[in-house]
Amino acid sequence: MTDKKKLISRRSLFSTGAGLGALALTTKSLLAKEANKKNLPPNVPEWTEALGEGVDANPYGMPSEFESHVVRRNVEWLTASTESSVNFTPLQDLEGIVTPNGLCFERHHGGTTIINPTDYRLMINGLVDREMIFTLDDLKRFPQVNKFYFLECAANGGMEWRGAQLNGCQYTFGMVHNVQYTGVKLSDLLQETGLKNSAKWILAEGSDSSGMTRSIPIEKIKDDCIVAWAMNGEALRPEQGYPVRLVVPGWEGNMWVKWLRRLEFGDKPYMTREETSKYTDLLSDGNARMFTWVMDAKSVITSPCPEKPIIHRGFQQISGLAWSGRGKIKRVDVSLDGGKNWKTAQLHPPVLDKSLTRFTIPFEWGGEELLLQSRAIDESNYVQPTIQELQKIRGVNSIYHNNSIATWLITKSGKVDNVRLG
Amino acid sequence: MTDKKKLISRRSLFSTGAGLGALALTTKSLLAKEANKKNLPPNVPEWTEALGEGVDANPYGMPSEFESHVVRRNVEWLTASTESSVNFTPLQDLEGIVTPNGLCFERHHGGTTIINPTDYRLMINGLVDREMIFTLDDLKRFPQVNKFYFLECAANGGMEWRGAQLNGCQYTFGMVHNVQYTGVKLSDLLQETGLKNSAKWILAEGSDSSGMTRSIPIEKIKDDCIVAWAMNGEALRPEQGYPVRLVVPGWEGNMWVKWLRRLEFGDKPYMTREETSKYTDLLSDGNARMFTWVMDAKSVITSPCPEKPIIHRGFQQISGLAWSGRGKIKRVDVSLDGGKNWKTAQLHPPVLDKSLTRFTIPFEWGGEELLLQSRAIDESNYVQPTIQELQKIRGVNSIYHNNSIATWLITKSGKVDNVRLG
Repeated sequence: MTDKKKLISRRSLFSTGAGLGALALTTKSLLAKEANKKNLPPNVPEWTEALGEGVDANPYGMPSEFESHVVRRNVEWLTASTESSVNFTPLQDLEGIVTPNGLCFERHHGGTTIINPTDYRLMINGLVDREMIFTLDDLKRFPQVNKFYFLECAANGGMEWRGAQLNGCQYTFGMVHNVQYTGVKLSDLLQETGLKNSAKWILAEGSDSSGMTRSIPIEKIKDDCIVAWAMNGEALRPEQGYPVRLVVPGWEGNMWVKWLRRLEFGDKPYMTREETSKYTDLLSDGNARMFTWVMDAKSVITSPCPEKPIIHRGFQQISGLAWSGRGKIKRVDVSLDGGKNWKTAQLHPPVLDKSLTRFTIPFEWGGEELLLQSRAIDESNYVQPTIQELQKIRGVNSIYHNNSIATWLITKSGKVDNVRLG
Repeated sequence: MTDKKKLISRRSLFSTGAGLGALALTTKSLLAKEANKKNLPPNVPEWTEALGEGVDANPYGMPSEFESHVVRRNVEWLTASTESSVNFTPLQDLEGIVTPNGLCFERHHGGTTIINPTDYRLMINGLVDREMIFTLDDLKRFPQVNKFYFLECAANGGMEWRGAQLNGCQYTFGMVHNVQYTGVKLSDLLQETGLKNSAKWILAEGSDSSGMTRSIPIEKIKDDCIVAWAMNGEALRPEQGYPVRLVVPGWEGNMWVKWLRRLEFGDKPYMTREETSKYTDLLSDGNARMFTWVMDAKSVITSPCPEKPIIHRGFQQISGLAWSGRGKIKRVDVSLDGGKNWKTAQLHPPVLDKSLTRFTIPFEWGGEELLLQSRAIDESNYVQPTIQELQKIRGVNSIYHNNSIATWLITKSGKVDNVRLG
């Protein structure tokens, strides 16, 4: 806030001593559309002259017609089908830390499964004292938790391992969303089923047509996993696992099994397709890292970005998101010169455990070229690495767990490009 | 949490030593629909046998078809038109503290106004050093704040002054919602316009067809008012003031002027229709309280409630919401016997300033009649009153600022009725 106050007081944002109307002139944006002069002050705008729609028009409200560009998007060439595919959250159009449910990215392996909640059952079997089956109503009788958590796909930024390939914030960072989940702690369900001492792993099984399955170690299950039925207050959306999904805080998204059908306890990992053939990280020497669950600290500048060019010279804000699977974000630094110099950004409360955190920092743009970067540090003191640091250890074969610092090149026209330094 | 642990350990929730399938039998709900047996374990459910919809099906996602009852609702007889009317948030169907944007209640005096953001302007005039006009892009250049705040209509629960009239949680408490707003502090805008010493009040003017106008004292403006353009991450919804509304934290909703057009600074209140004829509280002696801005501490049990009857005997949760315009919620008490005995509920973090706060408390139901109440205490130590305490001071003429304790009568069948005690 010190920076902000200094900037504002040092020089008026819109340095005009003139009266009404002067501002619109001095801040004419580089890309702005022309306004309809009939609607500008001191005229009465056209929308004031007619009654608007009544309260019954939209029992479930939708965004403005002028925001129709704010949607999830698919990269057409990325996957062979849309049923085993992914779309991306439009981070560049979002503020704060809540992702609206309708814009949460969607990754599935057999399409969105439609389940009648009356027919829904969750089975817990294997190395438990009592194998049990729960209805949705049963689950809702347990003590509830309400937690904001980010969910990130392990492949977020996966196309960037070998260079800056996709020129957009949405496509390079948009496999992440952040909502408040409501559900029951899996450890509370285990008080009912009991657990044998030999139980060391769980198999989480989805009821989608891909039969999505992942192994999770018992320590994580006992720590903070949630069997969730609501997101941002309302029932889970169909593409997010309605009526029930697993929440595995801070760990890669494919483990958060959707349309959750069964939890089987065993004494060793199940070595499913999704943790052996898929979602492993191939190293340079031909070996692959397996069970790379935690999503390490990461950040992205959402404005400006390739989709949000700079349209004004002068005072304005850099805004972005940071997150870590290891806990809270402790600090975010921003560089204008490709990492030579760093300034610390302001974090916007609430700064929550394993949740997206909004940061902003003010700056003045005089039309010069910039190399914009952000770097997240989490409460474990892990520092978001450069791609070079990551490649030294991990090579370039993987498409997973790329949490490296991105660079937005601001050109003299205000255009923003995703570039690779060094 | 002590209560919860004790209850769970004392007696298994579903007290069954039997194996798979036993649970569904013992917990057969009183009202549950019959499941399709072909979809129950160990059968493979029908939805697993077919590919689901692909990722391009819904660029902006919507709730499940099985949640179509979760919508905003209007009380048909309450107002003469739908353009000057209100609908209600379905609190009984929501969890956590975030209200999804599509379910935020909507109150307007001339219908929902549709504004092309290119034509949007905010004028600041009157007792300032420099009268100025801001575009939406201008506003977004300022330092941003991101804050969760509840917005409650002064008339929420207004029909209940003379008795329990409406038998529903949605209709008696649903004129409240809670989202994260993004915008610029009005005090930061004033650094640009300057402010004359004589400026003591502001007139906030909407550009809707009703020309909604309210006076706000300068102390509140300087304290925490926000000129906001986003809610829960995305642009404001049309019915919530797209593209810009005023946020007046903790104060009655009609002051949060939507489709905000103009802020005029003056040396006295403007005595508009909405603060003289309307939104004043008529007392028994014929005098009216005016400028009753703050929304006092209040709470509601959202489950069970008239729309959410109890469907199981045995262990389950009471869940509700509490809020206060004076700060954070400090404590919520719950009574099962109409206020004779109280137990303290668990508050779910984050517990934020002037935000909805979720509380829960476990209980066991044996089929007996209950008189369920909740009572909020805020950090100023204000205690939510009974209707009798409120009526002693305020009479029964008003339709505003009824923050009294509600009573849900649980009947022996599990049905829930809104009743008045005493």
